[in-house]
This record gives sequence, structure tokens and C-alpha cells, in this order.
Amino acid sequence: MTTQTEARILRPASYVSGQWHANADGQTLVDAVYGRPVAVISSEGVDFAGALAYGRQKGAGLRKMTFHTRARALKALGLYLMERKEEYYALNLLTGATRRDGWVDIEGGIGTLLSYSSMARRELPDERFLPEGKVERLGKAGTFVGRHLLVPREGVSVQINAFNFPVWGMLEKLAPAFIAGMPSLVKPAPQTAYLTERVVRDIIESGLLPEGALQLVIGEPGDLLDHVREQDLVAFTGSAATAAKLKVHPNIIAHSVPFNTEADSLNASVLGLTVTPDSPEFTLYVREVAREITGKAGQKCTAIRRAIVPSGMVEAVTEALKKELGKVTLGDPARDDVRMGALVSVEQRDRVRRTLEELGKESRVIIGGEAGELLGGDREKGAFLDPTVLLCDSPLTAVGPHELEAFGPVATLLPYDSLDDAIQLARMGRGSLAGSVVTHDRAEATELVLGLASTHGRLLVLNRDDAKESTGHGSPLPQLLHGGPGRAGGGAELGGIAGVKHHMNKVAVQADPTTLAAITREYVPGGAVREDVVHPFRKTFDEIGVGDSLLTHRRTVTEADIVNFASLTGDHFYAHVDEIGAKEGIFGRRVAHGYFLISAAAGMFVSPAPGPVLANYGLENLRFVEPVGIGDTIRTRLTCKRKIRKDLREGEERPTGVVEWHAEITNQRDELVATYDILTLVVRARDSFDPPAHGGEESAAQA
Amino acid sequence: MTTQTEARILRPASYVSGQWHANADGQTLVDAVYGRPVAVISSEGVDFAGALAYGRQKGAGLRKMTFHTRARALKALGLYLMERKEEYYALNLLTGATRRDGWVDIEGGIGTLLSYSSMARRELPDERFLPEGKVERLGKAGTFVGRHLLVPREGVSVQINAFNFPVWGMLEKLAPAFIAGMPSLVKPAPQTAYLTERVVRDIIESGLLPEGALQLVIGEPGDLLDHVREQDLVAFTGSAATAAKLKVHPNIIAHSVPFNTEADSLNASVLGLTVTPDSPEFTLYVREVAREITGKAGQKCTAIRRAIVPSGMVEAVTEALKKELGKVTLGDPARDDVRMGALVSVEQRDRVRRTLEELGKESRVIIGGEAGELLGGDREKGAFLDPTVLLCDSPLTAVGPHELEAFGPVATLLPYDSLDDAIQLARMGRGSLAGSVVTHDRAEATELVLGLASTHGRLLVLNRDDAKESTGHGSPLPQLLHGGPGRAGGGAELGGIAGVKHHMNKVAVQADPTTLAAITREYVPGGAVREDVVHPFRKTFDEIGVGDSLLTHRRTVTEADIVNFASLTGDHFYAHVDEIGAKEGIFGRRVAHGYFLISAAAGMFVSPAPGPVLANYGLENLRFVEPVGIGDTIRTRLTCKRKIRKDLREGEERPTGVVEWHAEITNQRDELVATYDILTLVVRARDSFDPPAHGGEESAAQA
Repeated sequence: MTTQTEARILRPASYVSGQWHANADGQTLVDAVYGRPVAVISSEGVDFAGALAYGRQKGAGLRKMTFHTRARALKALGLYLMERKEEYYALNLLTGATRRDGWVDIEGGIGTLLSYSSMARRELPDERFLPEGKVERLGKAGTFVGRHLLVPREGVSVQINAFNFPVWGMLEKLAPAFIAGMPSLVKPAPQTAYLTERVVRDIIESGLLPEGALQLVIGEPGDLLDHVREQDLVAFTGSAATAAKLKVHPNIIAHSVPFNTEADSLNASVLGLTVTPDSPEFTLYVREVAREITGKAGQKCTAIRRAIVPSGMVEAVTEALKKELGKVTLGDPARDDVRMGALVSVEQRDRVRRTLEELGKESRVIIGGEAGELLGGDREKGAFLDPTVLLCDSPLTAVGPHELEAFGPVATLLPYDSLDDAIQLARMGRGSLAGSVVTHDRAEATELVLGLASTHGRLLVLNRDDAKESTGHGSPLPQLLHGGPGRAGGGAELGGIAGVKHHMNKVAVQADPTTLAAITREYVPGGAVREDVVHPFRKTFDEIGVGDSLLTHRRTVTEADIVNFASLTGDHFYAHVDEIGAKEGIFGRRVAHGYFLISAAAGMFVSPAPGPVLANYGLENLRFVEPVGIGDTIRTRLTCKRKIRKDLREGEERPTGVVEWHAEITNQRDELVATYDILTLVVRARDSFDPPAHGGEESAAQA
Repeated sequence: MTTQTEARILRPASYVSGQWHANADGQTLVDAVYGRPVAVISSEGVDFAGALAYGRQKGAGLRKMTFHTRARALKALGLYLMERKEEYYALNLLTGATRRDGWVDIEGGIGTLLSYSSMARRELPDERFLPEGKVERLGKAGTFVGRHLLVPREGVSVQINAFNFPVWGMLEKLAPAFIAGMPSLVKPAPQTAYLTERVVRDIIESGLLPEGALQLVIGEPGDLLDHVREQDLVAFTGSAATAAKLKVHPNIIAHSVPFNTEADSLNASVLGLTVTPDSPEFTLYVREVAREITGKAGQKCTAIRRAIVPSGMVEAVTEALKKELGKVTLGDPARDDVRMGALVSVEQRDRVRRTLEELGKESRVIIGGEAGELLGGDREKGAFLDPTVLLCDSPLTAVGPHELEAFGPVATLLPYDSLDDAIQLARMGRGSLAGSVVTHDRAEATELVLGLASTHGRLLVLNRDDAKESTGHGSPLPQLLHGGPGRAGGGAELGGIAGVKHHMNKVAVQADPTTLAAITREYVPGGAVREDVVHPFRKTFDEIGVGDSLLTHRRTVTEADIVNFASLTGDHFYAHVDEIGAKEGIFGRRVAHGYFLISAAAGMFVSPAPGPVLANYGLENLRFVEPVGIGDTIRTRLTCKRKIRKDLREGEERPTGVVEWHAEITNQRDELVATYDILTLVVRARDSFDPPAHGGEESAAQA
């Protein structure tokens, strides 16, 4: 409790154009628990046009870094902030949030940085751009091909955030923007901006992000949106009303500035018809609803607002919820015995109260509604509100439960009789960020999920099998889409690398294969290859070039090969060993095993002595195109398709990289027999590669 | 020429809510060549709210079809329309377009249907929804997983089209919407709506699309946009000014209706610095620019408006363009000797003239500007305009060439001195649908393409290598993105299956592996499997179920296996056969060949006698996880991962399907040794499967 009592007035500053900018006067913020002044904020004097211009200019430096370099910076930043988390937890209490609420915000936010760092290093190339999808052959002869490429937008990602997650809200937008190569300008909601600023101050002091990668505006956004341009984008989280106002800004329309919206939605959780009061799913449902009502005092855009339960279960659910919510202690979140803190402000509390009154016209309060005991905090000056559950008897005809959002510890029970009705009720929310379905019946889960899929951004199926590891109805995850259609704003954030792509421009590039390979740095079949006296497997990662190629010697496939391969592997499939069956089969004759072909191909292209290629650890895209019969003669062309640098992991002695090789096996008529890509682990540099005692050095030395 | 002279007045009708709807009075359209009345159009009395409601209701039927069923309908429709193409060519002439222009519109449009049909059958499952990306493991124990799923939006795709491609413009939007499972409501631009209507009439008469899949509004859009809702979407092609007006419609904002814009842009084509007047690229450049000026009389949103050429080449390019454009004959497009027809209307012609005057303030006309000879058509009443080329001497400071679009046979030459300047000039267009770079120098192509990538939707590199098969600067292709940032509207169409996904809602589904498998109909590792006395390879495609699984017998890997495999394949890599090298290598001992493991695994799970499984034709996602040494004992689990129905192709005797199996090889410690997916071709139904003479029938009969 020391934090509150000893708090000095904070002066969170904006950070724009490389300078901290604070004002002596401004809006005074009070803490959520006692209503005492906590901070003064103002963006007076901030040059928004200058800040955007600065971000765009500094973006050039960011774009020169590769995805992996950016990812490493993000990881370092995450670890740096994690060491300082207690500072953020202290400020978190002033916002009315408990430590548990703060964990989602603070460690959840920092975790998002770390997740994006590892996803980027795992799934993106160590390049400045991202080739996407397959090479499209655009002409019969193969001289004209096309492929999509993603490059960073060359503007600023303007991020307008909500008050409820001052840390996560910033970091979940910053992480994918940064990985993409786009600088961020963050405008947090005023109420909790002091916590955001505290984190930004550490980020800037860390020096881990390049200058200009992060700017911050504390206070009003001024004329910011008057200055966004074609290459900028705006990502907004907040109310649908504010989104509707901002996204039609004439300047945003005139320059087709992408405007991504995450709006609160009236999310639903459906208790399955098959669930009985004594099944584990019943308990899971009640706990999930209670947790969503009380977590962050219900101030989550993903919180369960509508609990859709079978009519016959309303009573049982109400009783169980009463019991569960009865355990929730309310008060000063700094106290260990407090389970739920305050809303962010008394204005917010009063807004929720007014909405509750509106909701009361079609529903009645069945839990809560009376002020219980407060463990610390000020009932009047603090923004406290007891968990409240309403029941709507005619949810299919009511409007309020589906349209009015009480952004606090409030949910409404909606009874239903059939799965069709349950689906219809959930859909009456007109689009949600998150929904959940609690049932152990797979058929019921399937019907509900497919029925809700078109109106939701994320759907959780909760049951006894996944409950232990489930992250819950209300938790967006870096790997999965965060966003939803309709009322939820129609936006998309996170979702793994998709979240990175939102910050990039996609362009289709059409060219001849050799030029396309030069542009994308990936070999394109049909493009020019480079042959060398040095076997490509005797070159280090750094020495190998995309397009380096080897055409092997030939080998005639004999009956003995097929017999021996069948004997050795035990694969006596009739197409290989049964003259009668094979004649009647699709090939009309005995043919070699497909795996024999790729094994023999390896026998043709492998360089046996120890060398820079450590292992062939994977294979992709294998297709057997033409059968190979007895007497056919095969050979293989192996061409370096692309290179993926790898970080040195703990315990690894020498840096390596992944080299992907495109292999094509042809027959004596130069017909393609099999095509595939193999993945090899290759030592990075010659100085880290200790030449072996026997063989290989001489040719390697020529490289 | 008979078409014009004998033309009766057309009364193109709207087709809404399953009814044709025409009015006696309305707006009179005249043909572009002689200015004679050609059609009367009016949407008076159309119930737009009713049409949207009807589309949404009928959409349910469309969504019950699978991607493949829809794809087959689209193919049949394409072939049906192709048979009737001459009817469309006749009307095409009235719009001022030549037969060559019409080919792009008519056969290009029908070709888009066929392309989407085959892409859908090749790349999408035969399902009603589309699982996307990999399964994400969300907890350490693997009991909580997530995956993205795409389902059709449950509304209507409202398509507002431009006048210049009355057929392609409709079909390129209809095709991906239909494949996605979304009904379309098409509102073509009035000027050429009679041609669109002619095609729609055939589509409706064909009965090949389910009722409600296509509605048409001829005339003004009335209060159409007042009635769109959350699940609908709007796809607009036309001017940026109209887009800006429509996309801020309060109803569109209030319901977060996705609004996709394709706006005309000031597209650039750059002649490389390395190109000399005697190189093939010089000729290619001049021809491409001339073609883009004259094709469709320059009325293409992708046309080259800005020809960016090295300063030293301005004279040579001007001379060559003069010669090339001098060959262009102007007049009635019905005449064989006419190369360029009329603009769509005299209003459009006059608009272009006014823009030319504006452009004249910063540039001067160097080619054209005087009315040449007309081969048929009416100089006054027809909308003729000669090809016109301007030169801007100070393009880096001029505004007009980058901002004013003369939507006709007009382009401006912009001289440049360095590649940086060329890139800057192209970028001054503030976002383009298409751009091109003409050079044979790969480094130059790379620099230009990467420099232009963030401001373009499509970039063509044209040179001697791809010229023969190149489809040209101005041609969007079904496989590649059509759209562009900023001035081009920030939209995205086509781009292969991405274009289908634009019509679907993406939802992240979180569940336990077994439930996720039930929902997505794809096996999820860690989920429940089903074991049967019948070997899964003895079941037909229809009998196999996702999750059907086989755990094989075991096999101990011996030194003899490794020696024999090395001898047979010729793969004597040190890690397998060289005790000394292997000890120093990453495994620290001799290990089995990876390909031996998957070959031995096949030996364990293959069912040798002829049966429903015809062939293993491919393999994906192979990773060797742990090495297998001498004395290790392996076994394999094979589980049906997913099923893909296949169409019977010409010449094929019995229907088949692709079954994808997930294979996991483990060792005696139950550690995963290798994981991969194999693709098998399996006979569809038992009645189409002729039991073989020897073996296999008995167990198959049990199924």
C-alpha cells in the first residue's frame, strides 16, 4: 500500500523526434482506488507532423535490418523489460488492477515480444523482405513466372490504444510492426498512460531499438491524423464509436490509409446442451464466466458479456455463479486478500452503472447489485463496482443484451432451448472478438463452432481435455488472430506472422525465372544455374550461392536394385515385386520404389567425406512424377534454392545455417521423374569449420 | 458494321430476388462510335433491401456446396459462356472497343472463371471451410492447440464495377466470391451495362449457378448501401473520388462492412539505365508503352500513364514511339483495319481533353494532339481521341503528371538521371496498381523492383527472356494480386486463393486435439486415433476415416542394414559408414540413413497385395528428429490426416481420392525419430474397385 500513500505526482512525457517532451500543466489523472492525484499529462506543443516525418525518415534504418536482426533486438528488449517488471506492477495497482490482472498486461505484453522474436526467427527468412507462396508459372514454356513479395510499408504505424492494457496493448502492436520493419508511434489512452510511459522510458533507455522505432504521445492526439500518408497505417483499439469517428477522417480516406479497428464486442460463451450439472464442463463453465466477469474488473474487450445457457440449466448456473462470485473480495488491489480491484475511473464506473440501468429494462439483476464489503479503497472516490449478473428471459427478442456493453464486471445470462437458438443468440452480437463453447461432446462442439465461425475472430472449446492448459476465453495469443468482424471492428491483429504481414505491402512480381531468383534470392526452377568444379556440399554456408548446382552421374535402375531394395526394406508392394499384379496396376509393369529413387539420388549427389554439410535433416514437396522401370537410367540435378542463417544456440559450438536444395531426378529421356527439396544443416564459415583428417580439403580449398 | 446500323434499342434489365426487372423509361445510352441510341436503363422500382435479404437467404444454399462443387459449376459456366462469346463481341463494338480489346474483357473474363475453377480444385479441400496454416501447440503437454479456419461470410458481396471491363470486371469479382460461397450482387457502370446484362442473362438461363448466387442491378444504385450489414462486403472499382464518397457511408462505417477499393492509378513504366537503343529491351519498352496507350483507348486502370526514361534516351524513345503510334489507325472498331476504337462516351472524351489541358501546364505534347484520319465512326458524335504523348522536363518538381489522370490514350514521358530518381518519380504516384521495369540487367531489375515494391500491387520485369510469354504491364492475372496501396485504393483482388479468402471470415479455433480434429476434419497430432482390425490400406477412400490409424510391428536396425543400404544406394556418407568420421561428427557414432528409416517404415506399414491404395505419390514435412543407431528398434504409427476427393479426369477409369497420412517413427524409448506426411492415391468406392485375384479381399470385405 506504500505506492499509493507515498506517490508523488507523475509527469509522464511524450517521446517524439528523439526528444522527451513534457508540460507543467495538463489533465490531472487520479488513481482508481482512492481517487488521489497520480499524474498530469499533456501533449501541448508536440509537433505531430514532425513526429511522423521523423518516424518515416528513421524507418529507413529499421528497414535495413533483417527480420532476424529485428527479432534479436526484440528478444533482448523483452528480457530487459522483464527484469524491471516490478516497477510496472507498482504502477499497475494505481490503475485499479490486481497483480493477477497486471500479470496479463505486463508479463503478457513482454511475452508477446518474446513470442514474436522466436516466431520471426523460426518462420521468416533472414532478409529484409518476405517472398510468399509458390512461384506461379505464367506461360507454358516457363520463361514467364510470378511470385508475391512482402516489403515493409515505408511509413509510420500509428497506434491508438485503449486504457485497459497499458503495457500489453502497446507491446502487442509494437512487436509485429517492429518485426515487419515499421516504426511505431504510440498514443495510449490518457487514463493509464503513465504506466505505458514508464515502460517506454525503459525501452528508450535500453538503447536496444534503433532510434525512431518507437515514439510516444501522452495526452491528446491533436492534429496527428491530419498528417498520416499513404505508407502509414493506423491501428486503433477502443470503442466502436471512436473508431467510427476516426476512420472516416478525410485525410485517412484521401490517402487510403489502412485503419485497423479492434472494438469491444458483446462476446458470448455457450454452455453445451449435453453438459450436466455434475460434469466437469459445468464447473469449468461457471469458473470461466466468473473469471471473465472479475478479471480486470470486467474491463476487457474480449470478456464474456453474454452467458448462453440451456434453459434447464439457468438455475444451476445461477447458484454456482453466486457461490463462485461470492468468493470474490473487492478492494485495494495492493492487498493480498483482494481478488478484484477497481475500474479505471469513477467516470467509467458511472458509465457502467448507466448501462446497467438500460440493461435492466429487458433483464433483471440476479447476482450483485448491492455494494458489498470493501477491503481498502474508497467506495466513493475509488471506481468500485460489484460483480453483477443479469438474466434476460426473452433473449431472442431482447435488444439490450446484444447491443449494450457494460464495460465492467457485468454479464447477462441468456437461456436457450436448441443449438440453433444458441447460435442465433451468439450471432445477435453482430460480430465478436472472442467466443467460447463449453462441452465435451465433439459433435456439439463442431456444430457450435461452425455455426459461430462467421461472426467471430477467435473461438475456444473448453472441456476436461484442454482445461488444464487452456489460456481462457478472454486471452488473445500472439500465435492466433485477434480481431473480429462487424461490431468487433473488422480488424486483424496478431495471428502469428500474419500480424507482421499487416505492416507490409504485398506486391506481385512478374519476370523471367533468373531475374525473379535474383530479386527474391531464391532459386526459381527454369532459372539459370551456376556449376562449379567444387562440389556444392564442400562449400560452407557463406560460400554457397543461391543457384549453385550439381548435375550428377547417371545410374541405370536394374531388376536387382528393385529386388534388393524390397528385401532390405521389407516393402514388397505389388507394384514393385509382383509381375502379375503390377501389369494390372496403374503403371502396367514393375517399377522402382519411390524411396529407392531418392535414396539412389542421394547416393549420386552426396559427398561422402566429412565436410561443411553436417546433415540432411528434412525433405519437402516430394512428388513422384513418372514411374521408373527396369532399365531406365536416372540422374539428379541438385540446386541451392535458398539459405536460412541460424542463430548460434546455447551449447552449439559453431554457427550453422540451413541450406535448402531443389532436387530433380530425370530419366534417359530427360523427363522429370521426381522433384523435391532437401534441407541440410551447413557450417557457416570456413574459419569455424575444422577440415577433416581424411579427404575433402583440397576441393574445399578451391572454393 | 451491321451491328450498329441495324441495332434496336436494348432494354437491359436488373435481376433481383429471382426476377427480371426492367423499366420503359430511363437513361438513354448511346454507342461510343456514332453516338446513336443503344440502350435505355433504369433501376427505378428495384427493392434493394429485398435483394440483399434475398441474397443472404439464398446464400445458405451456396454455403452447403463444397469448394469443389462450386468450382465445377464455375467451369461449366465458363465453357457455356465461351460458346456464346460472339454475342458479347458484337455488343463490345458498341462500347468503342476493338475485338482485341474485347478479347481481354470477354475471354479474359471467362478465362478467370476457368482459372478459379482449377485453382479451387487444386488448392482447396473438398469442404465448406478452409483450415489454414499449421496447428499451433498452445501448451507444453499438447492438450491445448489452435488453428485458423476460414468460413464464408454469410452476407452478400456487393460489387460496384467500372465501365471499362463490363465482362471481366464482373467475372473477376464473381469467381472468387462464388468459390468462397458468397452470393454476388453486381452493379455495373451504366455506360456499358448492356454488355454485362447480356452475359448475366446467359448465366441465369444456363441454370448452372444456384438461385441467388448472382443478382444484377442495371442503373443507379439507389439506397443499396443503406442496407448492407456486418456479413456483407462491398468491392468497388472506379475512381478514387467515388470510392472516397462511398466508403464513408455511415451505414458501412456503423457495421464495419469491408470496403475493397480498386482505383485508377498513375502507373509508371521505367526503362532501365542499362538499356541502349539497339538492345531488344528498347523495342520492348516502346511497344509496351504504345500498347498501353492504345489498348482499350487507354481506358485501363492499370495503363502506363508515366513513362520514366533515362534523360539521354528521351529523344530515341520519342522517335520510336512516334513511329509505333503512327501505325495506329483510329475509327470504327467493327472495321478490320482499325487498331484503336473510341472512348466509352463523348463525356469521357471531353473529360480527358480537359485533363490534357491541365497537364499541358507542366508538360508539352510531343506526339498526337491533332485529329488524324478516322476509318469510320463519327468524329463529333463518336468519342474519338488520338494517342497523345507529353513530355515533362522537370518531373521531380512537377505535380500534374503524378496527380492528374487522363483516362484515355495519354501518357507522359518523365526523364531521369539516376535509378534513385527513377524510383522517386514512380513513387510520386502515391501508390499504383501496376508498374513495370524494362531491363535485362538483373542487378538493375532488383534495385528497381525493391525500390518500387512498397508502392505497387504488381510489378513486371520485361526483357528478352520473358517477352514472348509476358502478358504485359496492364494485365491483371487470376493468380496474382490485383490492387495497390494509397492512390490505387489500398484494396486486394484476385491473387489466387487469397482472392477467395477475402470473402471469408477467419477465425482462430482453440481446443483439445481430438475436438479440433473433429471440427476441421483433419487429424491433429496428439488427438485420439481409431484402430481397426482392417489394415487402413485395405479400405477405399470412402471407407477410410480421418484418425484411422495403424501401429506397425517393430524392427531393430542393424549394422548390416546400414551397410546394405549404403551399398545399394551408393550413399556412403561418413555419418553412416565411417566409424572415425562419424565419431567426430554431430551424432558421435554411425547412424542409419534417414532414407533407410522411411523406406523401412514403408516396409512396415505397406499392405503388399493389390488393393484400393494405388500409389504413394508424394511426401511432405519430413523431419529427422533423432538419429537411429545400430541396435535401435523402430516402429511406425500411420494415421489418416485428411482426405481430398478428386474429380475423375478424362481417360481415368475409376474415381479416386488423395489420402494424406501422418507418419511418426519412434524408437525403443518411444522417442520421435522421424515425422512426415505421405500422399496416397486411393480408389474412391468399393463398387469401383475391382478386387484383385490374389489376396487382400478378405480383410477388405470386413470393412
